[in-house]
Amino acid sequence: MASTASVPEGSRITVCEVGPRDGFQNEKTFIPTAKKIEIANALFASGLRHMQVTSFVSPRAVPQLADAEEVLAGIDRPEGAWVTALVPNLRGAERAATCKLDAVHTVVSASETHNLKNVNRPVDQSLDEFGAVFEVLKAAGIGVEGGMATAFGCPFEGVVPPEQVARIARRYQELGADSVSLGDTTGMATPQTVRAAIRAIREAAPGLEIHLHFHNTRGVGLACVMTGLAEGVTHYDAAVGGLGGCPFAAGATGNICTEDLVYLLQESGYETGVDLDALIGAALLTQDQIGRPLPGQVLKAGPRLKRHDPKLTVTAAG
Amino acid sequence: MASTASVPEGSRITVCEVGPRDGFQNEKTFIPTAKKIEIANALFASGLRHMQVTSFVSPRAVPQLADAEEVLAGIDRPEGAWVTALVPNLRGAERAATCKLDAVHTVVSASETHNLKNVNRPVDQSLDEFGAVFEVLKAAGIGVEGGMATAFGCPFEGVVPPEQVARIARRYQELGADSVSLGDTTGMATPQTVRAAIRAIREAAPGLEIHLHFHNTRGVGLACVMTGLAEGVTHYDAAVGGLGGCPFAAGATGNICTEDLVYLLQESGYETGVDLDALIGAALLTQDQIGRPLPGQVLKAGPRLKRHDPKLTVTAAG
Repeated sequence: MASTASVPEGSRITVCEVGPRDGFQNEKTFIPTAKKIEIANALFASGLRHMQVTSFVSPRAVPQLADAEEVLAGIDRPEGAWVTALVPNLRGAERAATCKLDAVHTVVSASETHNLKNVNRPVDQSLDEFGAVFEVLKAAGIGVEGGMATAFGCPFEGVVPPEQVARIARRYQELGADSVSLGDTTGMATPQTVRAAIRAIREAAPGLEIHLHFHNTRGVGLACVMTGLAEGVTHYDAAVGGLGGCPFAAGATGNICTEDLVYLLQESGYETGVDLDALIGAALLTQDQIGRPLPGQVLKAGPRLKRHDPKLTVTAAG
Repeated sequence: MASTASVPEGSRITVCEVGPRDGFQNEKTFIPTAKKIEIANALFASGLRHMQVTSFVSPRAVPQLADAEEVLAGIDRPEGAWVTALVPNLRGAERAATCKLDAVHTVVSASETHNLKNVNRPVDQSLDEFGAVFEVLKAAGIGVEGGMATAFGCPFEGVVPPEQVARIARRYQELGADSVSLGDTTGMATPQTVRAAIRAIREAAPGLEIHLHFHNTRGVGLACVMTGLAEGVTHYDAAVGGLGGCPFAAGATGNICTEDLVYLLQESGYETGVDLDALIGAALLTQDQIGRPLPGQVLKAGPRLKRHDPKLTVTAAG
C-alpha cells in the first residue's frame, strides 16, 4: 500500500469555496443573480481564490442555478482566481465552453445506484461519455476536475470499495483530468475510508492530484480533513456558513463550513491566504440572504482570541 | 520536547460521559431527579462506563444540580462503571465523601482571571487548598481527576502558556491525583495548543495520565481529538447530544457530542465498548427531556451504513 508524508506545517492549503454551487442548489427560494454575485465577490475579497461558482445542470432540474452564465459573467476575478462550475453532461460542457472558466467539475458516482439516480446511466456509460465532454472543454481551453460522488460510501449500496474509487480516478487520469475530487455526498467519509481511498488512488493513478470534498453530516468532516492532511492532501472543498444539505437526513448539515475549515487550518499552522474576519463577514452576508441560522460554528463564536467582556461572570465551569 | 507514539488502531479508548454534569448545569428548567437517573442509566446501558454524573457546587449557584446526592444514590452501576462528580472546594469534597463515588473531578483554571471568576481565588490559592480537599477524598477512598479549566486559552486573557498548564499538572501529580483533565472551557483548543499542552505535561509530570475535555464551540472539537490520538491520549470527555453551552457565545455549541465521538472512534478502528444505536436512543431520550434539538449530528443522520429508501431520487448531487 502506498503511503505518503503528511503536509508539513507552513504549507499553503487550497480551500475551494463551493457554497455558491453545492449550497445554493439546495435552496428553494430563488437567490437573485445580483446577490449571488455579491456573495461570490465578498468571498473572493476575504482572500479565497478557488470557487465553484455555479452548475450547468438542467434549469428545469435546478431552477436556482438557471442563471449560471449571468453569474459567471458578473463576478470579480481577483488575481489568482480559479473559477469552476459543475458540468453533469455534454450539454453542460457546451454551455460551459461559452463562459469564462478556469476548469469544470464533472460528475460520476462511485456507486452504480447513485449514478443511475443522479445522472440516469451506469457508471461505465458516464465514463465513456466523458470522452466527448473532455474534447469540448479542451477545445475551449478549460481544465477538468474529475468529480466523483459517493466516493466514501453510498446511501443506497453502503460500502464503496476503494478499488472502485481508484478505477474511476485512473479513467479520469487517462482522459486528461487535472485532478480527481472525492465527494462525500451524504457524509459517510471516515478517517479509515479517506485513507484507503487516497492510498488506492496513489497506487492506481500516480501523480493525479487529489481533492477532498467532505460533508459534515455526521460531525466528522474536519476530522476527515485531519486525515487528509496526514496523507498529504492539500486541496479541500467547503461551503460558506456550512451551506448545503443532505436530502436524506432532516436537520443534518451539508458541506464542511469554510470558516471552520479556514480556522482549523490557520490554527494548525497552515497558510490559506484568507482573512478570517472578512470571511466571517461574507458568511453573515450569506446567512442574511438565506434567512436562517447556518450551521457554521466560527460564525457564531468568532475567532479564537476574541476576548469577552471582563464584567461577565462565570459559575462552576469545568 | 517529549513526543509519543499515536494510539494504535484497535486500542480501547475511554469515553467519559459528562452530559449529566457539564450539560445539565446549563439547563434553566429543572430536570426531575428521576429523569436524570433514567438518562444516566440509559447511557450506561449503551455500554458507556465512565460518567461524570453531577456536581457538588453550591445549590444556590447551580440549583439544577442540588440533587447530587439523590442522583448518585439512584443510578445503576454496571460492572466496570467509573462514577465521578465535580468538586469545586472543601465543602464539595465533604459532601462527595458521603457518596458512592469512584473519583471526583476538582477544578482550577489555568488562567488567573478565569479562576478568580469561577472560584473566587487566585490559582495558587486553589492549588494550596487542594491539600485539604485531597485528604478528605483520600480518607473516603475516592480518587481524584485533577480538572483544569481554560487549559487551551482563556476568554478573558487569551493565550494560556503550556508552561502554566504543565505547572498545574505537576502540582496535581504531587498532590496524588490519578490524572489531569484539560478543559477546553470556551472552545479555544486547536491542534497546535493541544499538542503543546500534552507535550509540556509529559515533560513536567511524566507518567501522569492525561484526559482531554473539548468543546465544539468553533467546530474543531473532533479534529482536536484526532490530535489527541496522534499524541497518544486515550481518554476523552463528551456530552450526550452535544449538550452544554458556552455562556459567552449565543448559539455556539458546548461539549463535543458523545455519539459523534463514539462514531468517529469506532470508524477509526478503536474500541469504545459502546453500542451506537443504543447511545443514539439515550441521546433521543435526553433531547426529549431538554425539549430542543441538540447539536449532535449522528443523532440526526444515523449510523454510517443506514440505507436510504431506494425509491428516493437525487438531482445534481456533487
